[in-house]
Amino acid sequence: MSEKWIAGIDLGGTTTKIAFVTLNGELIEKWEIPTDNSNEGQNITLNIAKSIDEKLHELGKSRDSLLGAGMGAPGPVDYQTGVILNAVNLGWQDHFPLHASLEAATSLPAVIENDANCAALGEMWKGAGNGAKDVVCVTLGTGVGGGVIANGNIVQGVNGAAGEIGHITVVPFGGAPCNCGKTGCLETVASATGIVRLANEELAKEGASGRLVDILTANGSITAKDVFDCARTGDALAKGIVDTVAFHLGFALAAIANTTNPEKIVIGGGVSKAGHILLDAIHESFAKFAFSPVRESTQLALATLGNDAGVIGAAWLIKKKMDQE
Amino acid sequence: MSEKWIAGIDLGGTTTKIAFVTLNGELIEKWEIPTDNSNEGQNITLNIAKSIDEKLHELGKSRDSLLGAGMGAPGPVDYQTGVILNAVNLGWQDHFPLHASLEAATSLPAVIENDANCAALGEMWKGAGNGAKDVVCVTLGTGVGGGVIANGNIVQGVNGAAGEIGHITVVPFGGAPCNCGKTGCLETVASATGIVRLANEELAKEGASGRLVDILTANGSITAKDVFDCARTGDALAKGIVDTVAFHLGFALAAIANTTNPEKIVIGGGVSKAGHILLDAIHESFAKFAFSPVRESTQLALATLGNDAGVIGAAWLIKKKMDQE
Repeated sequence: MSEKWIAGIDLGGTTTKIAFVTLNGELIEKWEIPTDNSNEGQNITLNIAKSIDEKLHELGKSRDSLLGAGMGAPGPVDYQTGVILNAVNLGWQDHFPLHASLEAATSLPAVIENDANCAALGEMWKGAGNGAKDVVCVTLGTGVGGGVIANGNIVQGVNGAAGEIGHITVVPFGGAPCNCGKTGCLETVASATGIVRLANEELAKEGASGRLVDILTANGSITAKDVFDCARTGDALAKGIVDTVAFHLGFALAAIANTTNPEKIVIGGGVSKAGHILLDAIHESFAKFAFSPVRESTQLALATLGNDAGVIGAAWLIKKKMDQE
Repeated sequence: MSEKWIAGIDLGGTTTKIAFVTLNGELIEKWEIPTDNSNEGQNITLNIAKSIDEKLHELGKSRDSLLGAGMGAPGPVDYQTGVILNAVNLGWQDHFPLHASLEAATSLPAVIENDANCAALGEMWKGAGNGAKDVVCVTLGTGVGGGVIANGNIVQGVNGAAGEIGHITVVPFGGAPCNCGKTGCLETVASATGIVRLANEELAKEGASGRLVDILTANGSITAKDVFDCARTGDALAKGIVDTVAFHLGFALAAIANTTNPEKIVIGGGVSKAGHILLDAIHESFAKFAFSPVRESTQLALATLGNDAGVIGAAWLIKKKMDQE
């Protein structure tokens, strides 16, 4: 009998990533297709099924080679009904029956999960989590997302809103407004957008100087990457911003770790590409705010799977389903 | 065949509570014995076994009536080995093999767990958790403890230190010293001790007035209960302290809820006897700091089992073990 694979799917508003993954979590093949969100998203799962069939054909395989299709979707999921509650970027109406649609289109057993949770599962299975059963992932991108894994399972929460780490308040008084309607959320100071905002605040101050000022003058704007690049060269203003970002991240991650004492906290997303200059600064703040038995046992690590975390985590959903059957 | 019971044991430094509990979580009989922590705690499990036998005899039952013995113990537990890592109040040396000792003494299958976690399981099973599978319990007593339940299981964490809610930092700058070595922990402002400390700070200020001043003058000291009693009569100084306590509790509980989105957050322990004057104030702060889908789905409730939560949760451990076998 030839080896069986799982289809792992990471559904995005613009692009859908698809991969064939073995039961050991190895990537056999990965590719991307555009997400067609016209016509209320009616073609999304059909296009995915078609693309999977084409790729199987290309590899000389049949649909029988696949054990199932796991998918991470960009929105809150109702696990009882397999419905995605809202995902406006995809064209779907609220309460789109994604699980049923994916099973019908692919004729495969399907499991759906929130995309941030899939990335966390991927890092747990094959990435920085290194097989640990208690893992928290925080994704620092345009926003700040997260996934919490306890006893090897995603903590979904009663309303599917567990892991909303970006909306932990870290500036209780006078914080910046967040898209969620609150103020002072972690996302307002630790997302790429938040870091740029903090930098612009500093740069607007009288007497601001250093390399970031030069970049702002030359380019008309700065990026989060500029802040880390300048901090790495020793620029004082940039280092101050990195310290502020890391202070708030360490504060929030310590609160999380004091609650669930995970083996690993994995830091991913575009901002995490800053690497050790960020990780080391977060660690300093985390150590200050973590309860000592937690400080001694919960490790901080950079994510290692990059963009593959989502498809690998999505494939894990099917492996898990099979283990339970 | 006559009904089978479970022995639920809540081991304390001074007193041990024991109960016979049905598989449905009903209390058949409960009693207490002194905890004999002389002789390095060698008699503790033997005394418990003897007391269980005596009670069975009194009720005209045999040892066969019992399915197992679950125990909550006041210290961190190593779940792999059944060892209690340290529990100085009980006389035991570090790494006392409690699971083995309890099984040997009682000739019953045993399960051990941290006592705060047992109280959380009790509230989940038969108390304010009302059978919800995602529950966080916070215990406001001399200190502040907690238990986190996700998908129906205690989150233990890699070092058994999950649920250490009392050591979440809520005052990042200039907080009071905590017994744990940090400063500004929730415990420093929301335990009975912390509330008295906050009150004494206010009472020491020039121009302090109101009923708490009278009580301090009359008694030489005040209690956390005095603070709530005075707040209930409208005393401004006391109300200010309750608001401060509730502000910090709401802040920490919102961070927890944004992480795990539990169905219920159950507030127990001696301080929670203050009732709705405390719960309502916590709710106001929680609503301010919780992410909106969390605010809409995570409910705050007062614990309902009081001192029985521990023995009922301990009994649940055996029920759970049997369900898995």
